Amino acid sequence: MPIHPLIVSLFAIAFALLMTQKIKKAESGSGKAIEISQAIREGAKAYLKREYQTIGLVAVVLFILLWKFISFNAGAGFLVGAAFSALVGYAGMMVSTQANLKVAEAAKKGLPFALSLAFRGGAVTGLLVVGLGLLAVSGFYFLTKDLEALVALGFGGSLISVFARLGGGIYTKAADVGADLVGKLEKGIPEDDPRNPAVIADLVGDNVGDCAGMAADLFETYVVTLVAAMILGQFLFSNTLAIFLPLILASVAIFASLLSIFFVRLGKNEGIMTALYKGILGTAVLTALGFFPVIKKAAEILEKSFLRLYACSLIGIAMVAGMFFITEYFTSKKYSPVKLIAKASKTGHGTNVITGLAVGMRATILPVLLICLGILLCFSLADLYGLAIASVTMLSLAGMVVALDAYGPITDNASGIAEMAGLPDEMREVTDALDEVGNTTKAVTKTYAIASAALASSILFYAYTQEIEKQGLIVKFLLNDYRVLIGLFVGGLLPYLFGSMAMQAVGKTAGKVVEEVRRQFWEIKGLMEGEAKPEYGKCVDIVTKAAIKEMIMPALLPVIVPILAGVILGPQCLGGVLIGSLITGLFVAISMTSGGAAWDNAKKYIEQGNFNGKGSFAHQAAVTGDTVGDPYKDTVGLAINPMIKVINIVALLIARFLI
Amino acid sequence: MPIHPLIVSLFAIAFALLMTQKIKKAESGSGKAIEISQAIREGAKAYLKREYQTIGLVAVVLFILLWKFISFNAGAGFLVGAAFSALVGYAGMMVSTQANLKVAEAAKKGLPFALSLAFRGGAVTGLLVVGLGLLAVSGFYFLTKDLEALVALGFGGSLISVFARLGGGIYTKAADVGADLVGKLEKGIPEDDPRNPAVIADLVGDNVGDCAGMAADLFETYVVTLVAAMILGQFLFSNTLAIFLPLILASVAIFASLLSIFFVRLGKNEGIMTALYKGILGTAVLTALGFFPVIKKAAEILEKSFLRLYACSLIGIAMVAGMFFITEYFTSKKYSPVKLIAKASKTGHGTNVITGLAVGMRATILPVLLICLGILLCFSLADLYGLAIASVTMLSLAGMVVALDAYGPITDNASGIAEMAGLPDEMREVTDALDEVGNTTKAVTKTYAIASAALASSILFYAYTQEIEKQGLIVKFLLNDYRVLIGLFVGGLLPYLFGSMAMQAVGKTAGKVVEEVRRQFWEIKGLMEGEAKPEYGKCVDIVTKAAIKEMIMPALLPVIVPILAGVILGPQCLGGVLIGSLITGLFVAISMTSGGAAWDNAKKYIEQGNFNGKGSFAHQAAVTGDTVGDPYKDTVGLAINPMIKVINIVALLIARFLI
Repeated sequence: MPIHPLIVSLFAIAFALLMTQKIKKAESGSGKAIEISQAIREGAKAYLKREYQTIGLVAVVLFILLWKFISFNAGAGFLVGAAFSALVGYAGMMVSTQANLKVAEAAKKGLPFALSLAFRGGAVTGLLVVGLGLLAVSGFYFLTKDLEALVALGFGGSLISVFARLGGGIYTKAADVGADLVGKLEKGIPEDDPRNPAVIADLVGDNVGDCAGMAADLFETYVVTLVAAMILGQFLFSNTLAIFLPLILASVAIFASLLSIFFVRLGKNEGIMTALYKGILGTAVLTALGFFPVIKKAAEILEKSFLRLYACSLIGIAMVAGMFFITEYFTSKKYSPVKLIAKASKTGHGTNVITGLAVGMRATILPVLLICLGILLCFSLADLYGLAIASVTMLSLAGMVVALDAYGPITDNASGIAEMAGLPDEMREVTDALDEVGNTTKAVTKTYAIASAALASSILFYAYTQEIEKQGLIVKFLLNDYRVLIGLFVGGLLPYLFGSMAMQAVGKTAGKVVEEVRRQFWEIKGLMEGEAKPEYGKCVDIVTKAAIKEMIMPALLPVIVPILAGVILGPQCLGGVLIGSLITGLFVAISMTSGGAAWDNAKKYIEQGNFNGKGSFAHQAAVTGDTVGDPYKDTVGLAINPMIKVINIVALLIARFLI
Repeated sequence: MPIHPLIVSLFAIAFALLMTQKIKKAESGSGKAIEISQAIREGAKAYLKREYQTIGLVAVVLFILLWKFISFNAGAGFLVGAAFSALVGYAGMMVSTQANLKVAEAAKKGLPFALSLAFRGGAVTGLLVVGLGLLAVSGFYFLTKDLEALVALGFGGSLISVFARLGGGIYTKAADVGADLVGKLEKGIPEDDPRNPAVIADLVGDNVGDCAGMAADLFETYVVTLVAAMILGQFLFSNTLAIFLPLILASVAIFASLLSIFFVRLGKNEGIMTALYKGILGTAVLTALGFFPVIKKAAEILEKSFLRLYACSLIGIAMVAGMFFITEYFTSKKYSPVKLIAKASKTGHGTNVITGLAVGMRATILPVLLICLGILLCFSLADLYGLAIASVTMLSLAGMVVALDAYGPITDNASGIAEMAGLPDEMREVTDALDEVGNTTKAVTKTYAIASAALASSILFYAYTQEIEKQGLIVKFLLNDYRVLIGLFVGGLLPYLFGSMAMQAVGKTAGKVVEEVRRQFWEIKGLMEGEAKPEYGKCVDIVTKAAIKEMIMPALLPVIVPILAGVILGPQCLGGVLIGSLITGLFVAISMTSGGAAWDNAKKYIEQGNFNGKGSFAHQAAVTGDTVGDPYKDTVGLAINPMIKVINIVALLIARFLI
């Protein structure tokens, strides 16, 4: 096998470490800011430690099961996937909690410098996601030459990612909702006010949810897509190049991302978003150029039409661009959906929520049509392998997409630290400007992740059917087979069950936070006047415990249900489960992530002074909408992507036992 | 063909007319109450007139298309279906607007008498739905012997029903939300207070939405299920008895329903719900007994196992019972889901909405599993024909189910009239007690309707595949066919697009009502003090116009999209659309109808004095939840049932053109 992917991945990791050193060397600023940053880092570390201990137990059990029922390689693959995923989450979180402080301080030197630092912080996470992802897949395959074990590796990554997304999501949103309900609505103090006892928990949440959870999720998306494409290559072609091609394409894209990091600079009269988009545009163009010779050579060897395959890779890039545009339309303050929600706030909480729900539902239509168009074109051009090429290309941009996303929690925290440490107004204007853009970049990444899940799942479904056929049985997945129909229903209910459990967990935990915050305001004399300090640790403790307790059951659903469905009603039913969960999952996820971001920005739109601005009746209604949107976008919506993947991978692993 | 169904249907209609005469003879009470009731009836009639004019135009176009492309019979069938559906809606609404006044007056003579009158009012609608339904199907088949034209008849019924559900749903909820937002939240005046300028529009809405819309919907469900079972009988058996059997079973069930009307009496120490349940229980038992000899004879002639077929019909009854229990659990104040929402209201609007959304999502799980279990058992016992028997049996109870449902708007209006006419407290206690139960019976019917849609759609899908095969082509609907996959996605997005359009229509129209109500409170001097009368007509006018304008686009979606999908991507894609819309539709519908009812009852639970009762912070949050739940349960959730059926029927009608 070619050794390039291994070398490239190591290079990307080395580069990321180098950048980390540079960030560390930046100035840290005043004592108070350092103190706050330290508190955030410690809270985040403590949470991740506990989370990983809990997941570790589950991982050991699954390792033994995989070893016993499949192979030692599979067990080992699972552990490697799980360990790398955990590592990516931890590293991303550490960089982020370092960078936030430096960005707050860098605000002194002006917007361009602060932006550059914040983006580089995000870029480290981005490079680690793709670097470690490629290293795990190519390294493990190099050692074992065992594609099945790679599936188990994907399983490890996905499962950790479900846990991380859920646990982190429950943590961050319970803290956020709890802090806002009492702080903003009852006490009328601003976001991130140091008097709010839940403020540190809220800032920790940004890191464990948006940063560690997101990194684990995208790592999983990256790894599983590569593995799915490799398996497909094995099924469709006799030439081993088909297996390696995804790895080589990924290597090329990593180089493109590395170079494009330097494109992100704030030009004269340019918006922050434009500066960031230059990075993604650069990556897209360089990737397209770099893929040209690789696909040309591959097409020759695989005896396929170069033009058709290359067109599929361009479709992958076009889909990313499409998802970006659509999501921005539905979630940015500039366009009508967000303005509609803001306007509906004038007539109260109820109409705000109704309109937000409607916008969320509507936001699913174009992305799903775009996915359909992508599938249609790829199949027409080069069948399923065309779809695989498109989806690997789509994922090739992951490094830069993650960089943009990880930028979010860094600036969010920087702005929080600036507020809490009472930094001067000029500096806070800079951090606020950076923070605002973070909201949109976050929303965009979510649609990107779930859209890529749709493509990857389609490929995994095919792999599943092949795996069933390998057992010597011809199984048809017919829509008019009642077992398939039941499977579709059961699969369809998974995102709903999973979602309701996660939502309820947030609601319950947020309720606990509210009671604790109210208690502190009541019992600690002088807190509201700023004369006494709140007990931050209490709130951190409440959410840490609750998040870990509440994440376990829903995270195990995508493992248990496919096994039950397959064992009780056979492979047809399980096939239905795979597709059923993809269909409802896609809609639930997109409606929640886009709807949530739209609510958030509708609130921000009003805070800019529209419809009577902050403190008005409309603003209160908008805060309610934002509160509802929080668990939508940052807990449930996100976690559905890895959940769908876990279902698919479990199906692939148990296929042999179903005959 | 046997003539019995025709005779039975005419008998049921005659009986309904007789009961109407009796209701008309009941006392009407004081001048003020009559005046209000008259205003409601006139508003409702004016709305229906406009609605039917608009739908009439669409119907004429479709009649011509069906005539030209299929046959004159098909065109005529469509018109008959549409006309009967419109007639059922109109008649149900007229009875309801007569009975509401009588029930308010009957409250003088105590609860048992008022209950009996209200239920009989509902029973008239119930008998008309099944009587006219059976008359339309058996009469039209008697005249034409053309099953295809019967499909067109179902199309007419379903399409009117989508319009009626949507238009009525937008009307009723825009008026309700608008009235509550200003009246309850801003002005602090009670529900149905005569000072509220939107109160008449709100009461009219109950009739055009819950009554006319519901009757049209259940008529459609009934007709389409019968037609689907008849078509299946033709495909599966050579004996024509298989075609008539559904009609004969329906006739038996109508007799059972007629007899059971007399079971509904308030015994000593009995709750109102128990009295109503005696009616449904009686129908179930009598139906089961009556089906015994019929299915025994049919099984002999069709050479099938009697026990297996009979077991399937019992499964149908068991499914209705199961849906009742599950829905009651999720929507009644007695159980934990509603209490959980009420408790979450303590911490504010945001947590109330989050918890309500979570409860709605969770409420989908058991009904869907029950549907899966039903499908599994029926197929195991007697294949697809078993499922047809189960679904016909399920629908056989429709007469009584509609009676319970139609009871809702009657008591709702009676309670409104009592409040507005200032009737004495003892009388209002009676009407309030009756009204409260109406909420639960309404929620139960909705789950029943959507569950039956799932079964009927499965049968219609099979009919569609047979129709395709009849064209001489073997088409397989494989999950790994990309056209099927795209179809599933496109079908899946329909309930989302449809839902978002309807939600937004309610939000927009409610906003207009709010502005008008605010204007009147502002401009009409002495309104708040009760010295001046509001201009009720203005609000009625606003919602009438808006509802009709906004219903058209979403109602045409289920006609246009299947045609596009089938023509562009072929029969495989259209097959995917059918199943895809069923899957997401089922979840969207149940989560909305049950979630909405749970929100409503959580508010009522707090109003009973829990969590500091009316006027408390928790109560305000609960009102917000109820407001969000309103369009959920009474506009979107409901309309999805007929929408799914329209998609299926359109597919069946265009199948021949796709090869």
